[in-house]
Order: sequence, then C-alpha cells, then structure tokens
Amino acid sequence: RPEMVEPKNEIGLVNGLAWTSVGGEMLQIEVAILDGSGKVELTGQLGDVMKESAHAAISYIRSRAASLHIEPDFYKTKDIHIHIPEGAIPKDGPSAGVTMCTAVASALSGAPVRYDVAMTGEITLRGRVLPIGGLKEKTMAAYRAGIKTVVIPKENEPDLAEIDPVVASHIQFVPADQIDTVLKTALISAYESRCVPPELAAAPRVKAGEISAPQEAITQ
Amino acid sequence: RPEMVEPKNEIGLVNGLAWTSVGGEMLQIEVAILDGSGKVELTGQLGDVMKESAHAAISYIRSRAASLHIEPDFYKTKDIHIHIPEGAIPKDGPSAGVTMCTAVASALSGAPVRYDVAMTGEITLRGRVLPIGGLKEKTMAAYRAGIKTVVIPKENEPDLAEIDPVVASHIQFVPADQIDTVLKTALISAYESRCVPPELAAAPRVKAGEISAPQEAITQ
Amino acid sequence: RPEMVEPKNEIGLVNGLAWTSVGGEMLQIEVAILDGSGKVELTGQLGDVMKESAHAAISYIRSRAASLHIEPDFYKTKDIHIHIPEGAIPKDGPSAGVTMCTAVASALSGAPVRYDVAMTGEITLRGRVLPIGGLKEKTMAAYRAGIKTVVIPKENEPDLAEIDPVVASHIQFVPADQIDTVLKTALISAYESRCVPPELAAAPRVKAGEISAPQEAITQ
Amino acid sequence: RPEMVEPKNEIGLVNGLAWTSVGGEMLQIEVAILDGSGKVELTGQLGDVMKESAHAAISYIRSRAASLHIEPDFYKTKDIHIHIPEGAIPKDGPSAGVTMCTAVASALSGAPVRYDVAMTGEITLRGRVLPIGGLKEKTMAAYRAGIKTVVIPKENEPDLAEIDPVVASHIQFVPADQIDTVLKTALISAYESRCVPPELAAAPRVKAGEISAPQEAITQ
Amino acid sequence: RPEMVEPKNEIGLVNGLAWTSVGGEMLQIEVAILDGSGKVELTGQLGDVMKESAHAAISYIRSRAASLHIEPDFYKTKDIHIHIPEGAIPKDGPSAGVTMCTAVASALSGAPVRYDVAMTGEITLRGRVLPIGGLKEKTMAAYRAGIKTVVIPKENEPDLAEIDPVVASHIQFVPADQIDTVLKTALISAYESRCVPPELAAAPRVKAGEISAPQEAITQ
Amino acid sequence: RPEMVEPKNEIGLVNGLAWTSVGGEMLQIEVAILDGSGKVELTGQLGDVMKESAHAAISYIRSRAASLHIEPDFYKTKDIHIHIPEGAIPKDGPSAGVTMCTAVASALSGAPVRYDVAMTGEITLRGRVLPIGGLKEKTMAAYRAGIKTVVIPKENEPDLAEIDPVVASHIQFVPADQIDTVLKTALISAYESRCVPPELAAAPRVKAGEISAPQEAITQ
Ligand SMILES: [Ca+2]
Ligand SMILES: [Ca+2]
Ligand SMILES: [Ca+2]
Ligand SMILES: [Ca+2]
Ligand SMILES: [Ca+2]
Ligand SMILES: [Ca+2]
Ligand SMILES: [Ca+2]
Ligand SMILES: [Ca+2]
Ligand SMILES: [Ca+2]
Ligand SMILES: [Ca+2]
Ligand SMILES: [Ca+2]
Ligand SMILES: [Ca+2]
Repeated sequence: RPEMVEPKNEIGLVNGLAWTSVGGEMLQIEVAILDGSGKVELTGQLGDVMKESAHAAISYIRSRAASLHIEPDFYKTKDIHIHIPEGAIPKDGPSAGVTMCTAVASALSGAPVRYDVAMTGEITLRGRVLPIGGLKEKTMAAYRAGIKTVVIPKENEPDLAEIDPVVASHIQFVPADQIDTVLKTALISAYESRCVPPELAAAPRVKAGEISAPQEAITQ
Repeated sequence: RPEMVEPKNEIGLVNGLAWTSVGGEMLQIEVAILDGSGKVELTGQLGDVMKESAHAAISYIRSRAASLHIEPDFYKTKDIHIHIPEGAIPKDGPSAGVTMCTAVASALSGAPVRYDVAMTGEITLRGRVLPIGGLKEKTMAAYRAGIKTVVIPKENEPDLAEIDPVVASHIQFVPADQIDTVLKTALISAYESRCVPPELAAAPRVKAGEISAPQEAITQ
Repeated sequence: RPEMVEPKNEIGLVNGLAWTSVGGEMLQIEVAILDGSGKVELTGQLGDVMKESAHAAISYIRSRAASLHIEPDFYKTKDIHIHIPEGAIPKDGPSAGVTMCTAVASALSGAPVRYDVAMTGEITLRGRVLPIGGLKEKTMAAYRAGIKTVVIPKENEPDLAEIDPVVASHIQFVPADQIDTVLKTALISAYESRCVPPELAAAPRVKAGEISAPQEAITQ
Repeated sequence: RPEMVEPKNEIGLVNGLAWTSVGGEMLQIEVAILDGSGKVELTGQLGDVMKESAHAAISYIRSRAASLHIEPDFYKTKDIHIHIPEGAIPKDGPSAGVTMCTAVASALSGAPVRYDVAMTGEITLRGRVLPIGGLKEKTMAAYRAGIKTVVIPKENEPDLAEIDPVVASHIQFVPADQIDTVLKTALISAYESRCVPPELAAAPRVKAGEISAPQEAITQ
Repeated sequence: RPEMVEPKNEIGLVNGLAWTSVGGEMLQIEVAILDGSGKVELTGQLGDVMKESAHAAISYIRSRAASLHIEPDFYKTKDIHIHIPEGAIPKDGPSAGVTMCTAVASALSGAPVRYDVAMTGEITLRGRVLPIGGLKEKTMAAYRAGIKTVVIPKENEPDLAEIDPVVASHIQFVPADQIDTVLKTALISAYESRCVPPELAAAPRVKAGEISAPQEAITQ
Repeated sequence: RPEMVEPKNEIGLVNGLAWTSVGGEMLQIEVAILDGSGKVELTGQLGDVMKESAHAAISYIRSRAASLHIEPDFYKTKDIHIHIPEGAIPKDGPSAGVTMCTAVASALSGAPVRYDVAMTGEITLRGRVLPIGGLKEKTMAAYRAGIKTVVIPKENEPDLAEIDPVVASHIQFVPADQIDTVLKTALISAYESRCVPPELAAAPRVKAGEISAPQEAITQ
C-alpha cells in the first residue's frame, strides 16, 4: 500500500527520488534554517558523495543569493540543517543534488514548494543539471506517491521512452539542464509568495509519450 | 525481577524503549542543560544513527523554540548533554528520536515529564514521527516497568493488534504523527508548570484492543 | 606483596577499584585543576566508555556546582586533567564513574578525600549510581591495600553475600544510589575543610554480614 | 556520441583532461569564489593527491596575487570552492593541477576562460609544469569534445609523436613549463577583459606534426 | 662503538633510557619553548602512551609552576615542542615520563641539565614516579654512553641487584618516588643558574652494591 | 637521460636527495611564505615521519629566528607551505630534514640558495644533523643532476669510502653535525644578499678520497 504525498505546499520540504536495490523510492528532504553562525549539518546517514552534493548546492546558492531573493550573508548568520528521513537507511549518490538545492533555496527564501512535484538530478557548482540513473524505477515511485510533475535532467530525456505507460500518462516531465528550471517548476511563484523572482515563471512540461528518444543505460 | 520506574515527575528525564536481541528494554534518557556556548555532548555509547537523531531533535527544538516556551538563543548560551545509561552498552537506531526530543524540550523549558509515560519513534527535522520496529517487545518492557502510557508512531497503530493482551489491558497507547502530540502527552501541562504552552492539552489515548489493524512487519 | 594505600588525605586523589582478567586491582584516579579555558584532558589509556563516564561526571558537577561549593564558571576558567596511572595499561568500562566524579569534585572544591575509602560504580548524568560487576574481586583488592570503607552501588548490595569473609570482616560497605552518598562518605566534612556543604554528613555504613541478599550475576 | 564543449567563454570554468581505465575523458573544473573567511572546499570525490594539487595551486596564486591582478587578501576574505563533476566518480592524481590553478585564477581575477582550450599538467608550488601520462588518450578526448588548443607540459613534447594523426591535425598544442604560459593561453587577454595583465600575450602554439621527438613512457 | 654523551650542560636536553628488542638505548629528549599560544607539539614517532605521558608531565608542571620558578601563564603564552630523535624509529611506553618532565621544566625555567645524568620512570599527574622495566639493559646503555648518575624509580630499587657489576661500579643510582628528587638530581642548582628553587639541593645517591634487594620482574 | 639542475640561485628552493627502491633521486623542495596566520601546509604525499621532520625544522627556525635574520613573529603572521613534487609519489623518512629547514630559512630570510648544492640529513629540534642511509645512491643522483657540493651528516663521513670514484672526483662533500654548517654552505652569503648573518661564512669542504673511513651500514 503506497504512501501518498501530503497535499500541502511547505517551505523547506522537497520530494526527491532514490533508486535502491529493491526499486525506486520517494524520499523527502527536509531543511531547517536556524539563527546561527554558518554551520552546515547533514543527517540521515548520508554518504560522502551525497554530502558533497549538499555542499555544492549550498555554494551555488551562496553565489546566486541575490537573484534568488536570499539574504547574501546567510552563510555566516544562519545554520543550515539538511535531514533525510528515514535515519537508519544509508543514502548516497549525487542524484539528490537538485532536490537538496531546491529545499535549501525554499527554506532560505521562504518560497513554498509544490507538494506534487518530485525531482532527480545531479547539480554542479554552477547550477548545471547532470544526468542520473534509474529513471524508470524513480518515476514509478513518484507515480505511486501521487506526484503530478517530475523534473528530470535534460540529458535523461531519451530515457523517457522506457517509462511505464501508466506512469507516463499520469505524470508530466520537466527536462532541466539548469537548476533555474528546477526552481521555477518546484517553487511557488513570486505572485503568490513574493519570494521567487518574477523571471521564474512556469517551465514547459512534456509528456513522456511526446518524446521518442533511443534507450540508453546511465548509471546513477 | 523487573525494575520499576520511580514515581516522580522529573525535568530532563524521559523513558525510552529499546529493542535488543534479547527483547525489549526500557532506557531512560537524561539531559542536562548547562551554562555554556552551544556545545552538544552525547554519551552512553550512542551509534551514528542515534547521534544524528539527537541533532535532528535539537534542530527541531531550535526551529520551534518560541512556541515551546524556550529561550531562542539557547543554542549559543547553553551546552546540552544527552546521556543514556548504561554506559557500557552500545545503543543505536533512530527510534529514540522522540524520546531525546522530549527530554531536551523538558530540560530547556523546565516542564517536568510524567514518570509513567514511555515512548518510541523516529523524529524528523520537521517534527514528524516515523514508524519503528519491535513494538511488541518494547511495550512488554514498558509494562514490566510500571508504565501507564506509551506514545507510539501513528504508522505503528496496526502493530497494536499484536501486543500481548495483558500488556494491552494495562497500557494506554497514544499514536502520534507529530512531535506535538508526544510533548502534550509527556510534559506536565502549562497550568501546573507554567512552562508548556496552553494549546498543549491532553491528546486522545486509545486502548490496543479498540484497534483491529492488519499485522505488518516493520524493521526498526 | 600488596601495595598499601598511603595514609594521607589528599585533594583530587581517589581510590578506584577495577576488575581485570587476573583479579581485582586498586587504581588511584588523579585530577589536576589548572588555570585554563575549559579544556578536559583524559590520560592513562582510557577507553571510550570510561571517557564518556568522565564527561558525564563533569557535566553532573557543572549542573550541581553551587550545592557542591564549586565556582560555577570553572567550565570556562579552568582546565581539568584526569589521569589514571599506570599509563601503559588500557582501562575501560563505566565503573570508575563515581571515582572520577569524586576526584573532580574534590579538586574543584578543595575538599580532601579520605585515604582509606575506595569506591566503584557507574554514574549517570543526574548523579544516579548504577550497579557494576566484579565486586568480590574488587573488594579483595581494596582489603589488600588497607582500605577501611568501600562505597558500592545500592543495586549491588545482594552481591555482598558473596564477599570473602575475611574481607567482609575488615571493610565497611556504604551502598549508594546517588552520588551524594558517595561524596559524603569520601570527602572530608565541611567542619574540617570548609569546602564540603554541611548537609553532607556521614552516610550509614553496613557490614556485609548484616545483609543476606540472593546471589546475582551482574556484568560490569 | 561525444559530448561537445559549449561554445561560451566563462569565468571559473576550465576544461581538464583525465585518463581513466577506459580511455581519456574531458572533465570541467568549476570554481566558485564566495564572500567568506578563507575556507577552501574541494568536492567531486577528489583523492588526496588531487586535493594537495589544489592547495599547491592556491598557494601559488597567493604568492603571485599582485601580478595576476588578484586582490592579495582573498585568502581571508573569500571562500574558494572547487568542484569537479561528475560527483560519484572518484578522481585522483596530480595532472589536474594546472587546470585547477587556471580555474581559480580566472574566478579570482574575473578573466574569462577560452571555451576551446583544454589542458593537463602537474603544477608545483612555484608554478612549474611537470609532465603527465596518458597524453594520447587525453588528446583524443579533447578532439571529440571539439577542443581547438591543448596545453601540455613541456616535458611531454616528445609524446606528441604518438598522437593520433586526425587529432594532431585538428588541435594546436602549447607546451608549457611554467603556469604563466598556461594562463596566457587559456585566459582572455587584458584588452578584452581588463583582468589579465598585459604581459600575458598569446603563447606560441605548435602542431604535433612539427615535432619529431622519441617515444617515452611516462606514468601519470 | 658506543656513542658518548657530549660533556655539556644544556637547557631543555635530557638523557632518557629506552628498552628495545635489541637491548637498552639512550635517547635524548629535546624541548623547545617558543613564543606562541599554548600549543603542544610532540614529534619523533611517539606512540599514544608516550604522548599521554608528555601531557601528564606538562600538566604537573602547570600545577607546580610557582615552586618550579616558572611563569605560571606559559600554558597560554608559549608553545612547547618535545622531540625525540631519531625520527624514523617508533617510540612508546610510559617510562620517558620523568625525562620529558625534566626537559620541559629545564626549558621553561632556564635551568641547565647535568649532561652526565640519565633517567627512567613513569610520571603521574601528581609527580609520583612509578616503576619501569628493563633496568638492566637501560643502565648498560647509560654506562656505554659515559653517564655517571642514573635516576630510577624507588620501586625499582630491588632490580639494582641484577645490574651488571661493571655498570654498578661506575654509576651512582638515585632512587626517586617523587619527581622533585629527579629534578634536584638533574637540574643545575639555583646557586649556579639562579633558576632552580633553593630547596632543590642534591639528592642522596646510592651504589647498586649497597642494596641487596630480591630480584623482581617488572614489565615496562 | 638525467635531468640537470637549472643553474639559477632561487629563494625557497633546495635540492634534496632521496633513496628509493630503484636508486637515488634528487628532489627539489619548494617553500612558499604567504601572508597569513601561522598555518603550516605540507603537500606532495609526505609521510608522517617526513611531516614531523618539517615541524621540527620549523620549530628550530622559530627558536633561532633572530640569529637567522628572520622576523621572530612569522609563526603568527605568515603561512608556510612546503611542497615536494612529484605529487603522486609517496615520500617519507627523516632525511629531508635539513633540506626542508634550509628551504624554509631561505624563504623566510630572503637568502637565495646555491643551485649547485644538494643535501641530506635528519634534523633535530636543536639543529643537530643525524646520519642517514643510502649515501652512495644519493650522491650518484646528485652527480647525474650536475650538483657540485653535497652536504652530508658528519656521522656519515665513513660512508664516503664507498662512493663511486667518478662521483667522488666531481663532488665536494661538506660534513655537518649542526644545521649552521648546512645553512652556511647552501645559502648565498650576507655580502651578496644582505640576508644571511655575517658569521655564516663558507664551511670547509672535503673530497671523498681524502677520508678513509671503515664501511658501515646505516639504515635511513
Ligand atoms: Ca521508506
Ligand atoms: Ca554528460
Ligand atoms: Ca539494563
Ligand atoms: Ca512511512
Ligand atoms: Ca598495578
Ligand atoms: Ca538497573
Ligand atoms: Ca563522463
Ligand atoms: Ca622530470
Ligand atoms: Ca640509535
Ligand atoms: Ca606499584
Ligand atoms: Ca622523478
Ligand atoms: Ca647516532
């Protein structure tokens, strides 16, 4: 019996997608921004690659704070805690990079995150979105949880040809090669929250069926 | 010959429930708040997952200090020491999260903890209560110690069907999916201690027998 | 040829009792309080459990500084060094907790320690004294060293039935379930040293023979 | 289907060349300069040798800040983050030294990096460029990515005799024994960016065919 | 061909005696006191037990600075570097405790160390001198190096019966159970150096032949 | 084809000699002195023994700063970076001690280092030079690189009898038992650079043939 996502837009809570030995899984990334002195805390049994992803995401946000409507001195006035339940399960890999970036951006800017959006993708220090593996399994998990929109790396578009037809008919896919596209898709717009910059409008969404790309194996 | 809980409501002392290879065990979590500079000390042979749980609990309290009637600058003016006797026994896992959170909240706010309440549950950074394993054994240990009320994760309600009938007839269960419910149940109310916010009234308690949920295996 | 304890009450020097593979052993715990900035140094090849015991003991003293007649800001104006000779022998376990606590309390308050008192017991963050193992061997070592009084955990009272009769006839046992009882027994009273609070009078001492408790195996 | 380099000169982004068990690979090194306090962050699963290379590169830049038109106090007013995607792939070895140095120099000075230049070479603390291995495979990767100019260590010139003829006919090689030559080749000139010192003009470029050096095995 | 000790009294240089698998060895302990901020540096491939010995020695000196004619604030105004050549040979054990203590006391007070004195003994935090092993081999090494006086732990006096007769006829032994005796023996008196407190006069020296103690095996 | 040393006297660059499983090797030690706060950075895959050597060398220079014409507060106003190319090759052992000391002294004082001098020897905290191994192989490497003068530990003089005759006829050897002799030999004199103290004149140089010492095996 799958666990459905709760229909509520929250700040600092983003739906990620993981790929485990027993299939895809949705995992929610939680971020708390606390008055502090610039410490970063990462909990939930994150491996080294995932921790480095978090630091790349945070540095990206520091380098773009102004355009993200974030106080630029947060790196010395706030502590950032990123936690991924369930705390006993080891997690690793770079594909939660965009999710952690979105969660931190939301928490720092105050922009709520759409509850029905999930995402996967490696992030680089300059905000590029790199391809990931396990898209078929990840989207299956998103579907089971009631997700309506999944942001994927642009380079993974060919993998959409392999998606389960039922999943593909219920989910819209947003290919992104820059984190800007991810943030536009997941964060509630500036008109509603007054926190997201106006140029972040809705990004184009595609149906998996519309794309007929060749099958390609990508390891996560 | 079981060791009974001492009938005294104390500040910073909470009854947790652990699941070991030889059955359930009650373990008391002790918290001391000391004038200091924001250091966190965790002793009692806690494993990495349990230490991360403690940090998630503390960050949650920092993010909610005002509504918990706690001085918001405690993170830089106090040192927090969490200790779990017996010091030679290694302990790990996320299921003491709610217990550590309650103990820290009690110690920081000055609200005493009901001596006849025990609890188990993973806590997330946002105060959600996640399911745990070993409920049958844990409740048996609580019963032997003279506990009257056990707070369990909401998602573990189906496991109540498996509880020993004698245990079920002596203990009230409080299912919680938010830490608020845990704190309301365990901390002495504001009318008595002037430390717990008024909206924290008594949470509904259920008898195990009233719930007929399907059996489900959950690993801790 | 056993080594006898030196008949001199000293500050910051307390007789502990250890249990090794070749029998009991008395070991003296030394504490130096130095002008400093709050650092804690632990030497003598102490294992992790013993180090955590030391930290629990120090936090307990911080939380009770006023009633122990200790300057409450010692945690930031003094360095504390706890050393256990002989430096090449690895030592571990929680049962030196009360000994380290007494030694630190003596060194910080200036109250001398009775030279003919030895002790064993785990300490918790709130000053509870938990049971230990190897009481028979430990008391034999105390007897050989010329000790007159041994403080034991209250929960170990049943083990007194197993003590060697010769040992039992020469040593008085002081069962303690709180560290207060330990400090009252070991520290020279306030009337003499003007350092121990008045309410710390003599605790009742029992002869092993007076107690007929059932035998019980307790691992250290 | 090779991935082409994007035809855009960017600040703090430099094309490096790596040698893996399955052939050469181009990897882009990203640098972010952030207001901070002098911290250096290195992510992307860099091994110890590569991390030390980064520190040597940064120390070189500190020692030459004035002549590189860089604020000399950056070591205490800025944080430097060097990241090498793809984050899950371990990377090591000294041959990315010149690339990291160029990327940091670009990011600190604001001078853009030519998008069609790639490079490989160990850097020393004094800016010498030491030879590397795998030149044939590395240049093949550069060719596939659309690179026009490859900076190589002067001592690797003899290895140009082994380069694939097609690669050699499309790529110009710039031998360098000092990092100055590397920076002159890769950074956009001062006339355009007003950030590169005037004495950094174009360095001479050679065709592989023009050099007939003996074959020599060099391990990376 | 043994290496003779250089006939010169130096500050901060003390002859220690070690016991290796191939016999005794003299090793000189060097101490440098540097303007600094209280850092302690220990080099020469010292094992954990030896490092803890050094820290116990330094804490002892801090606790007795006034009576040793040492500026009491050295722990925050000076850096202490203890080095034991030869740097490639691992060294461990507690028996260099008195030697390190004497070297640090000499360097801090400015009192020169007699070049023809060697020593061995564990030191405790309170300045007690504990017994060591390998006395026969150690004294042989001292004899070969031209040492005239060897300070030994009081509890090792019985071992003098086993000393090689030639060694015993050339060396005077000073048994010590407190570090005071060691310092009196090794440091040049206050009348000469104006740095050693007056009460530190010459300690009594004994010939090995004068003592007829039973043989006893003591492990280092 | 051996690599010749470049005929240029540089500041902070000294020729060391290493002994590997495949023979001797010359390695240049680079030092950069940077405005900073007293940090020491050691790169080039240095092992623990070599790192400790570097720290001993730096402490020696701190203790002798005045006589070396070095600002005595460099330990808190400068960062010191010691790097040994080639960065991928692990290096260890104490015999680069004098080389690192000379390189740091040169960089701090501004005195250039003679390009045709190489050296080997362990350094102690007080500036003594201790013997090393592999002298025959090391001097062969120095000869191949065009070195004219090699500083060796005084205690290694007997090993000169084993030097290859061709090497011995082209190289002058300077035996040193104090680092002063090393610095006098390698640093350009004060008359030229105004940075080296006047008392540092030329040390006597000997030809290997002039000494007929017995063969002796010394491990590095
Ligand atoms: Ca799950
Ligand atoms: Ca790609
Ligand atoms: Ca128990
Ligand atoms: Ca769940
Ligand atoms: Ca013993
Ligand atoms: Ca118990
Ligand atoms: Ca790739
Ligand atoms: Ca070379
Ligand atoms: Ca030796
Ligand atoms: Ca003894
Ligand atoms: Ca080489
Ligand atoms: Ca020697």
